Amino acid sequence: MEKYFLVDEWNVIEEGFKPEKNRLSESIMSLGNGYMGIRGNFTEFYSGDSLKGTYIAGVYYPDKTRVGWWKIGYPEYYAKVINAPDFTSIDVFIDGERLDLAKVNFKTFKRQLNMKEGYVDINFIIADKKGHETEIKTRRFISLSKGEIAAISYTIIPLNYDGEIELIPLINGDISNEDSNYGEKFWDEINKNVDGYYGYLTVKTKKLDFHVTVSMKYNVTINGKIANNNIYSIIKEKYVASSFKTYCKKGEIINLNKYIAITSNRYYNNDELIPKGKEIVEEAFLKGFDKLFSEHSKAWEKQWEESDIVITGDAESQQAIRFNIFHLNQTYNGKDPRLNIGPKGFTGEKYGGSTYWDTEAFCFPFYLCTHDKNVARNLLLYRYNHLEKAKENAKKLGLKGALYPMVTMNGEECHNEWEITFEEIHRNAAISYAIYNYVRYTKDESYLADYGFEVLVETSRFWESRVNYNATKDKYMILGVTGPNEYENNVNNNWYTNTMASWNLSYTMEVAKLLKEKYPEKYNNLVNKLQLKECEFEKWQDIVNKMYYPYVESLQVFEQQDGYMDKEQKLVSELSPDDLPLNQKWSWDRILRSCFIKQADVIQGLYFLNERYDIDTIKRNFDFYEPKTVHESSLSACIHSVIASQIGYHDKAYELFLRSSRLDLDNYNNDTNDGLHITSMAGTWLAITQGFGGMKVINDKLCFKPYLPSKWKAYSFKILFRDHLLKININSNNVIITQEKGSELIIKVYDKEYTILKDSTVIVEK
Amino acid sequence: MEKYFLVDEWNVIEEGFKPEKNRLSESIMSLGNGYMGIRGNFTEFYSGDSLKGTYIAGVYYPDKTRVGWWKIGYPEYYAKVINAPDFTSIDVFIDGERLDLAKVNFKTFKRQLNMKEGYVDINFIIADKKGHETEIKTRRFISLSKGEIAAISYTIIPLNYDGEIELIPLINGDISNEDSNYGEKFWDEINKNVDGYYGYLTVKTKKLDFHVTVSMKYNVTINGKIANNNIYSIIKEKYVASSFKTYCKKGEIINLNKYIAITSNRYYNNDELIPKGKEIVEEAFLKGFDKLFSEHSKAWEKQWEESDIVITGDAESQQAIRFNIFHLNQTYNGKDPRLNIGPKGFTGEKYGGSTYWDTEAFCFPFYLCTHDKNVARNLLLYRYNHLEKAKENAKKLGLKGALYPMVTMNGEECHNEWEITFEEIHRNAAISYAIYNYVRYTKDESYLADYGFEVLVETSRFWESRVNYNATKDKYMILGVTGPNEYENNVNNNWYTNTMASWNLSYTMEVAKLLKEKYPEKYNNLVNKLQLKECEFEKWQDIVNKMYYPYVESLQVFEQQDGYMDKEQKLVSELSPDDLPLNQKWSWDRILRSCFIKQADVIQGLYFLNERYDIDTIKRNFDFYEPKTVHESSLSACIHSVIASQIGYHDKAYELFLRSSRLDLDNYNNDTNDGLHITSMAGTWLAITQGFGGMKVINDKLCFKPYLPSKWKAYSFKILFRDHLLKININSNNVIITQEKGSELIIKVYDKEYTILKDSTVIVEK
Repeated sequence: MEKYFLVDEWNVIEEGFKPEKNRLSESIMSLGNGYMGIRGNFTEFYSGDSLKGTYIAGVYYPDKTRVGWWKIGYPEYYAKVINAPDFTSIDVFIDGERLDLAKVNFKTFKRQLNMKEGYVDINFIIADKKGHETEIKTRRFISLSKGEIAAISYTIIPLNYDGEIELIPLINGDISNEDSNYGEKFWDEINKNVDGYYGYLTVKTKKLDFHVTVSMKYNVTINGKIANNNIYSIIKEKYVASSFKTYCKKGEIINLNKYIAITSNRYYNNDELIPKGKEIVEEAFLKGFDKLFSEHSKAWEKQWEESDIVITGDAESQQAIRFNIFHLNQTYNGKDPRLNIGPKGFTGEKYGGSTYWDTEAFCFPFYLCTHDKNVARNLLLYRYNHLEKAKENAKKLGLKGALYPMVTMNGEECHNEWEITFEEIHRNAAISYAIYNYVRYTKDESYLADYGFEVLVETSRFWESRVNYNATKDKYMILGVTGPNEYENNVNNNWYTNTMASWNLSYTMEVAKLLKEKYPEKYNNLVNKLQLKECEFEKWQDIVNKMYYPYVESLQVFEQQDGYMDKEQKLVSELSPDDLPLNQKWSWDRILRSCFIKQADVIQGLYFLNERYDIDTIKRNFDFYEPKTVHESSLSACIHSVIASQIGYHDKAYELFLRSSRLDLDNYNNDTNDGLHITSMAGTWLAITQGFGGMKVINDKLCFKPYLPSKWKAYSFKILFRDHLLKININSNNVIITQEKGSELIIKVYDKEYTILKDSTVIVEK
Repeated sequence: MEKYFLVDEWNVIEEGFKPEKNRLSESIMSLGNGYMGIRGNFTEFYSGDSLKGTYIAGVYYPDKTRVGWWKIGYPEYYAKVINAPDFTSIDVFIDGERLDLAKVNFKTFKRQLNMKEGYVDINFIIADKKGHETEIKTRRFISLSKGEIAAISYTIIPLNYDGEIELIPLINGDISNEDSNYGEKFWDEINKNVDGYYGYLTVKTKKLDFHVTVSMKYNVTINGKIANNNIYSIIKEKYVASSFKTYCKKGEIINLNKYIAITSNRYYNNDELIPKGKEIVEEAFLKGFDKLFSEHSKAWEKQWEESDIVITGDAESQQAIRFNIFHLNQTYNGKDPRLNIGPKGFTGEKYGGSTYWDTEAFCFPFYLCTHDKNVARNLLLYRYNHLEKAKENAKKLGLKGALYPMVTMNGEECHNEWEITFEEIHRNAAISYAIYNYVRYTKDESYLADYGFEVLVETSRFWESRVNYNATKDKYMILGVTGPNEYENNVNNNWYTNTMASWNLSYTMEVAKLLKEKYPEKYNNLVNKLQLKECEFEKWQDIVNKMYYPYVESLQVFEQQDGYMDKEQKLVSELSPDDLPLNQKWSWDRILRSCFIKQADVIQGLYFLNERYDIDTIKRNFDFYEPKTVHESSLSACIHSVIASQIGYHDKAYELFLRSSRLDLDNYNNDTNDGLHITSMAGTWLAITQGFGGMKVINDKLCFKPYLPSKWKAYSFKILFRDHLLKININSNNVIITQEKGSELIIKVYDKEYTILKDSTVIVEK
């Protein structure tokens, strides 16, 4: 953990340049708009340590699986997030010498992410060996109002000398992934040209034929006046650029605005990419930087109006929660159901794929509660559209129904560890749970008839074929699984998996009943389409009735899996600090045979199916499992924080909230260099709204049981519940709920009902 | 399974050429002498499907580990068996056209392995497009009497034409492994030259700096007379050759004898390699092919004298057992304690490494009982010499003592699957068991004092740190292991592992007692060297006393591991043939959660610690487990065969013997193309001697309980027991035991004692 960035409610600020922190800053200052994104790299050439990153949503490379020993069922390919052509860079030459920021002295330095308006400024004064001082100011943004647009304003001022300054805005497609195995390149050149201030480069991926055109146009002003100096084109292999050169007087202000448009064949035909790119970049160019920026910042204003969380009295938490919400909104915008939420968003290359169960289990509620319901619906449709592939996946393993992949881009599995790929099957239930969660929150039952039921039936069929009946015990068991706690592999009867599988079956049957009543015609069609038989329901009911759940009688807690209690029972507090984090200090077998838990497992079940369990049960299990949990998944602290809030462990809840919220800002796990933990950011939002705020939907009613963390003076969060935009404000005395949009609504606060009228406020004393 | 080769008691014969069988034949016809080996490739160029293979013992390449997801503790490198320079080839040009055996018609074809004398003949008549018929006869051998020598006699006769024949004996170092990831080459050239009929090539491995010089010398006769035609040298990158050209008349017999010497810096200094190679190859050249061959075949004669098994009435079995013994003796000669028994010997590249637990568990008894005791002792010393590395390995996993690697070349682990590398720890006990086995058989207790005890103590320390005490049950448990049945991973309390760990501890304490009594001084030194404390013995005794063994009360059988009985209990006979072999048909998770067993697991324990269990217990467990066993490890059938013999299941024993003995000859698993299953060959020997012969050493006495398999008329095997060479002959009426060397000896047959005098015979009626 390190406190490197300045704390500010709306900004993350790096003051003074430390090369060893460069990658960290680059991750933190990443920008994106759901369509593309860039890391917070320097605009100028920098020969020091850096991960230059440009990413385009849905553009990936199927990298050949490499394993020590092949197992049947492994996927042939791994969907790799690939670094796309660099469009941010501007090469700078001063008096003929290329500016390399790794070789200058920074007299001043400030890199700043502004989250309110969504931009990054990098401003500094540098001195070279000759004593020449130069001031540089840059602002960049990736447009939230027009997905294909990015823009950079670049200002350079020779402070104490006259000299020749050459600026070379460029597009470079000759890039490789840092995590590539042999420096292999993923892009081939298709087309390129530079014509005056306009240029483009079209490249295509070596496999899958993703075509991307990067178009740029720029202009330069000197002291505010358009400069019409001679420019010349530079065209190299996978590279286009334009050189602008001028002889400057001391103090002259040279400003270059570079506009970029990214067009890809994910949205256009190949032959449209260049003309469409030109059209978009021309339009941006004509609007100009300020107008473009103002449209962009207005879009951010609207986002914040609907999803801001305000915390009074704790600037660190305020900064953190905004940082999390900001990046969630940068990563996914819900417009394209082919896209999902990558674990690193647009901030790095690690983990590949784009979709883990993180989406359904951790991210889904944020989008569900802070955006129009179509956003959450598109997340569900993403899985619906992959149903056939999930069926193929189950078939490949000799099973019925559908098994959704552990990691995927296009619906095909791309993870290659047997204990995860084949055994971490609880993910299937999370996908069903998201459907349940969506319908519970939105009341949009038509989704079940149109799409959801098919997913529920096929996941249920999977469970049916995956359980085995133990005749001796007259119970159904699920053998050979990995639960959410990945520090146990290939265990039998993981309580969470058994519980969620049984829940999945029950919910499918419940939905069948509902559809039969409310949508009889659609239901009949579905029965035909799915070839659904009555005996399947009978079997599912039998499994639900006779599911086996490991239980520790003596302690009255659920047993994480068969045999968990045979382990040496230790607590995290008994470990030496040298042992932590276990995943960096202990060999895998040692982790596996220890009792230590990576992330919420039994607790995850208590979180999802919370209403099933009484507070004492939840408390007993929390008391038993949390002290054994090392929270080495970024998804652990948030869920534990929600449950800790529920059982009145407010200090613990706050500690875990902090761990989740400032994970990247304070580089808790020492891995933010590689990119941000996007999916865990949603967990922070959960910790506040569901944890501190006690928000739930029970029996079709929105309920709150808020409390105020002791370090805070007040906090508020906003949610969109059906047609209602609500602001929930909690201070030391009251809970103030304001309806900002929508008509009369009955809610519950501390188990008591209140009616909020249109445009009005309810104040509940605590 | 396929019956492709002709059955003959001393030969394996391929008659008629089938290109699709070429790799299979190449594997079967491999030759070796413990120092180097070659596959049964053609001498001539062959553009068809072939795995050209030359291997030199102990020369390997540390290939970088490639896994999907790295786990702490994985080895950085994998010891890869690498293909060495090809020295067998002779390029042939007829009338200026290169002979490519893939492009001619074979009028006759015979490839034959002679096991009695250890050579391969490839004889054929071919016709080309012009109708020219050519007869070619080759014989090759790898000298058993002089390890560094190989020789090829090559005869070519133009049958129906006159024409120019060019022969180019060559050495080609420009080779790569077939299983290389990216066609990478492992050898760099150091030196080369051709001087008349003599030439050499020195290469070195890209890593670890193994230097190898291949020297060759040849001569040619035409119709029996030395030919002194003009020859010229061909020198290319990593390639040397000499061209001999002659214009032949129809029917003229051209014979080329090529002598090869392999010198490596595993035995010489780098600067000696060329002169030493020259000296050796000159010596061979001067002796001539026939003399060299006769020395070589005499060495084989001696081998057979000490280890032959004769079976009357079943030619297939006779051929099979000789094939197995032949390859065992080709693979390991026990002269160099740095070497061991590779799973493919010198017949292929698969599996890498050289040493698995196969050596101790399956191969050891063959070498122990058919060779001078130093051979077995060198196998033990191999492990003793790796003790420090095994200690480092345990430390890396956070454990005490020594953990021997799963797969190794030089003592370092090179396997990279966590469930094997970190969890298949039972291998440690097999290494201790081999010490026990050696001492029991040889009575060489000094080995314990000089080497064995250290290994026993460090393996015991490993077990001590690897068990965990379960306070609730007052038992010691071993969690997170993979037993010999690798179709179960990361299980708790594998009965075999727990049993062997406990046995290991007991044996260590027993040996401590013995040394204290018989070698007090050495023992005291050992106590000091090992820093051995009395409390360690106490702890070990406690573990032995309180070890937990899973047991199925209702069936009175040992439970393979915790939870095994929760699986769906099925039999192999209930599987569809389409499901088999499981490892090629089922996904890994399906295999793991099924009850099906890859190889002897509980049964392996009953085999090793046989005297502990009564026949009823053994039978109950065999009856329970064998029908669930798919025998998909080549090491499974033999152990089951031994136990089946013991419990009187003679037909079953014979069926399993056949499966083991003709595994490669009949290509049972359809994978002999990649090389032979060397380590399983020793299992066949066990099935006969320990199974059918009922051979054991009990209370220092050699015991037999032989029976005659119903398909056989008689069989005999030979063993070296201490100073005694015995021949045990079993026919339908008698057991005839002849002492061929050695003095008076008391043995037991069918539990009755007999004294065999020097050079005499005991006949026991059955």
